[in-house]
Amino acid sequence: MTRALLVGRYQPFHKGHMQVVKQVLSECDLLIIGIGSAQCSHTGDNPFTGGERLMMISEALSEEKIPLQRYIIVPLPDTNNNSLWVSQVRALCPPFDVVYTRNPLSKRLFEEAGISVREQPLFDRRRFSGTEIRRRMIAGESWEDLVPKGVERVIRTVDGVNRLKGVIGND
Amino acid sequence: MTRALLVGRYQPFHKGHMQVVKQVLSECDLLIIGIGSAQCSHTGDNPFTGGERLMMISEALSEEKIPLQRYIIVPLPDTNNNSLWVSQVRALCPPFDVVYTRNPLSKRLFEEAGISVREQPLFDRRRFSGTEIRRRMIAGESWEDLVPKGVERVIRTVDGVNRLKGVIGND
Amino acid sequence: MTRALLVGRYQPFHKGHMQVVKQVLSECDLLIIGIGSAQCSHTGDNPFTGGERLMMISEALSEEKIPLQRYIIVPLPDTNNNSLWVSQVRALCPPFDVVYTRNPLSKRLFEEAGISVREQPLFDRRRFSGTEIRRRMIAGESWEDLVPKGVERVIRTVDGVNRLKGVIGND
Amino acid sequence: MTRALLVGRYQPFHKGHMQVVKQVLSECDLLIIGIGSAQCSHTGDNPFTGGERLMMISEALSEEKIPLQRYIIVPLPDTNNNSLWVSQVRALCPPFDVVYTRNPLSKRLFEEAGISVREQPLFDRRRFSGTEIRRRMIAGESWEDLVPKGVERVIRTVDGVNRLKGVIGND
Amino acid sequence: MTRALLVGRYQPFHKGHMQVVKQVLSECDLLIIGIGSAQCSHTGDNPFTGGERLMMISEALSEEKIPLQRYIIVPLPDTNNNSLWVSQVRALCPPFDVVYTRNPLSKRLFEEAGISVREQPLFDRRRFSGTEIRRRMIAGESWEDLVPKGVERVIRTVDGVNRLKGVIGND
Amino acid sequence: MTRALLVGRYQPFHKGHMQVVKQVLSECDLLIIGIGSAQCSHTGDNPFTGGERLMMISEALSEEKIPLQRYIIVPLPDTNNNSLWVSQVRALCPPFDVVYTRNPLSKRLFEEAGISVREQPLFDRRRFSGTEIRRRMIAGESWEDLVPKGVERVIRTVDGVNRLKGVIGND
Repeated sequence: MTRALLVGRYQPFHKGHMQVVKQVLSECDLLIIGIGSAQCSHTGDNPFTGGERLMMISEALSEEKIPLQRYIIVPLPDTNNNSLWVSQVRALCPPFDVVYTRNPLSKRLFEEAGISVREQPLFDRRRFSGTEIRRRMIAGESWEDLVPKGVERVIRTVDGVNRLKGVIGND
Repeated sequence: MTRALLVGRYQPFHKGHMQVVKQVLSECDLLIIGIGSAQCSHTGDNPFTGGERLMMISEALSEEKIPLQRYIIVPLPDTNNNSLWVSQVRALCPPFDVVYTRNPLSKRLFEEAGISVREQPLFDRRRFSGTEIRRRMIAGESWEDLVPKGVERVIRTVDGVNRLKGVIGND
Repeated sequence: MTRALLVGRYQPFHKGHMQVVKQVLSECDLLIIGIGSAQCSHTGDNPFTGGERLMMISEALSEEKIPLQRYIIVPLPDTNNNSLWVSQVRALCPPFDVVYTRNPLSKRLFEEAGISVREQPLFDRRRFSGTEIRRRMIAGESWEDLVPKGVERVIRTVDGVNRLKGVIGND
Repeated sequence: MTRALLVGRYQPFHKGHMQVVKQVLSECDLLIIGIGSAQCSHTGDNPFTGGERLMMISEALSEEKIPLQRYIIVPLPDTNNNSLWVSQVRALCPPFDVVYTRNPLSKRLFEEAGISVREQPLFDRRRFSGTEIRRRMIAGESWEDLVPKGVERVIRTVDGVNRLKGVIGND
Repeated sequence: MTRALLVGRYQPFHKGHMQVVKQVLSECDLLIIGIGSAQCSHTGDNPFTGGERLMMISEALSEEKIPLQRYIIVPLPDTNNNSLWVSQVRALCPPFDVVYTRNPLSKRLFEEAGISVREQPLFDRRRFSGTEIRRRMIAGESWEDLVPKGVERVIRTVDGVNRLKGVIGND
Repeated sequence: MTRALLVGRYQPFHKGHMQVVKQVLSECDLLIIGIGSAQCSHTGDNPFTGGERLMMISEALSEEKIPLQRYIIVPLPDTNNNSLWVSQVRALCPPFDVVYTRNPLSKRLFEEAGISVREQPLFDRRRFSGTEIRRRMIAGESWEDLVPKGVERVIRTVDGVNRLKGVIGND
């Protein structure tokens, strides 16, 4: 049985992330979705809390009828120190065999720890991007079709667009 | 829709915990199971990592065929500071309306934060207790019938009994 | 009785801050002056320690003969995590009913915690600004008339201008 | 001008503390009252927050008509590390010349840092003691005459006795 | 080439430690001596700073004419979290192949990380023990013949016996 | 006897650093080489761990046949707080009388703590610079002649150039 780990910040979780999740699910038995920088919130780059992002992913995957025994979602707070990060991930996640990532630091850290790393599948980064979605929210443009319905619902529930507009002046 | 939070250390998750989970599930729509002291491991009181405990609960609930859309499991690291704890829980969990707890500190902290607290249902504490299970493991006595099958399996996979015997001398 | 909280970094406390303090005092019974980023010092943006800033404010308000039972000064260290900040402020300050702030992040965080926020009164930001005062100190220009006499005295006592010139190269 | 520092946990501030404050005030020009372990609250030994203790001391000294320009109250969070504590105190307090303490660790740390230490004046420890006051609160006995009126008022406002009874089971 | 790691708190470094160092040196090419709990000082169990203990070991090994290219001394601060400790040790130490330890927790943590562990050689624990040396210092008994001459010298230089007597009342 | 402290990040230790070490050694009896930001690694500015840098310096000085009783190398983690840094350095290092530094912040902090500071000797900064060496590594240019042989060896052993190339995309 292959257990794969996929880590992202998911600010917010969008349709590109969903493509990646489906692709990785087709290559493994259990997918652990790690929410990176889980302790961050209320900034221009990280508007949503770890708990809100957990809700987004949970709603989005349920809406896609992905069998629930196929994945586990885990919030992962940062460490101050790169050399401790892999150990922190291992302590907070169920055991995994392989990591999917495109982040060069993450790739290097897992490889140096002797953990197998695979290239995270591509998605259309020009269309789907957290940065672009947050830019649209601030500009008052339409962003809703870039995210799954459940994610839109969570963002509305927590008044996410206004929060983002509110905190952006601080950056 | 009622979303309830239930927090425990689950070292390990046992059949008494399962009774509580079922009881609380009968009173709410969504149950958030918070794993307290998630950063702790490899001590006599906290032998298992947050990730291992997440696995235990996930296996145990799946084995009981509890519908997977009914619960979410969230690892909750401690804060050094009681006055920050409720905020940390709120940041890492999806939104919730009510907390089930028997812990007096936890009860007080949630109440002072204006969050509704209900008495956690009783279970047979003389039979089911994390302390007793860990004592039996160290003494080489039988402990397996106090935990769900899936929990026993996780503990075997991580060589949990030997780990506990190994670290206990340090306490 | 209304207790108001006003938070700033006060690097240093200047005549614009004094205008705000007087205005807010006219609208409340007790004013809690929170010194933000209290743990910071010896940087270009935060040259003065929390204790030095406490001294500055104390001297400046005493010089203005503001009745001493009208205010309390509290150093407030940062949290690493925005979602914990309001709880930290509440734990370190006496109880308060309303927060005066113009900082969008601060406004948002207090509002999400259900605390009443009022717009902080304006002052002449073109004339009075911590950034401008620090720029003048580094450039060797005159800055003394932008701060209350007591603040100037504290800055001289701690050799503040030389400290700022000393540390600025590090930024 | 002599500025003295006096540090205590003040859980709660009682009449013995008041005797000490008056005695030290008679030997110095400015008294800095440091609230130790300011980040602690909601435990059997540290039931009150830093902000609540600040309020207690402020009310008690005002009630005794101690001239307000004679003292400054500063919350002092712990460091994890004894060798950093004196530096933390110095960074958060206005400058001081002498420390009054009876705590052997505190005495040693300030002396090794080259700071003058004087023996803190005695008070009747058999009658006045934080431990005894907390014991009485838990036992439902009378404690009110051991603390200044203002302290009693703050404790009632924050429902302190019930909080202490609530959290004590956790120790 | 074999590089071995040996970790202890060395409060203080005594003749039993020296026996172990010599024994392990005879089995490896390079010995890394890790000073555990390096951030601790000024307590009854940890009276000496990391820097003072580094000095003790350096003086003691030099006095024994142990070739200086044979060992490296590294202060190792604790982590709050057992699951991060091995990674922290690896980040602060030069690379090593084997760990010598008798501490059950340490043994378990290194083994779970896939690092080879050997049993630390025995020494006469009844005669040589940090606990016993600290007890003698507090009691005013003779302790000097239990430590190398260089260690005695460092302890005298930092007024170590008086420091220990001073802080012990705090425990 | 004069004990001097010299602090740098040494990312990596190069021939300019070696010139400084030799110059300072000619002016003191014992040189403490402090490795700043010891907890950092795997970033574009701080590619090497504290332990790897300790190894580099140890190899480089041994290769130059600098008598080993003349120096001690100490990893120094950062503090979050400038006002605590000098105390942290003092706690982790053996006692020292004088600090050699060109860093303005470091100079100011040690001076305010009453510690004697001397200007660190110059070296040819145009030729020897950590920034330049890291730039060359990333660009695939030759960097080997800017560092001592032992440093080159350590960098090869830990696959340092590939690590730097790997993590640089994250900055």
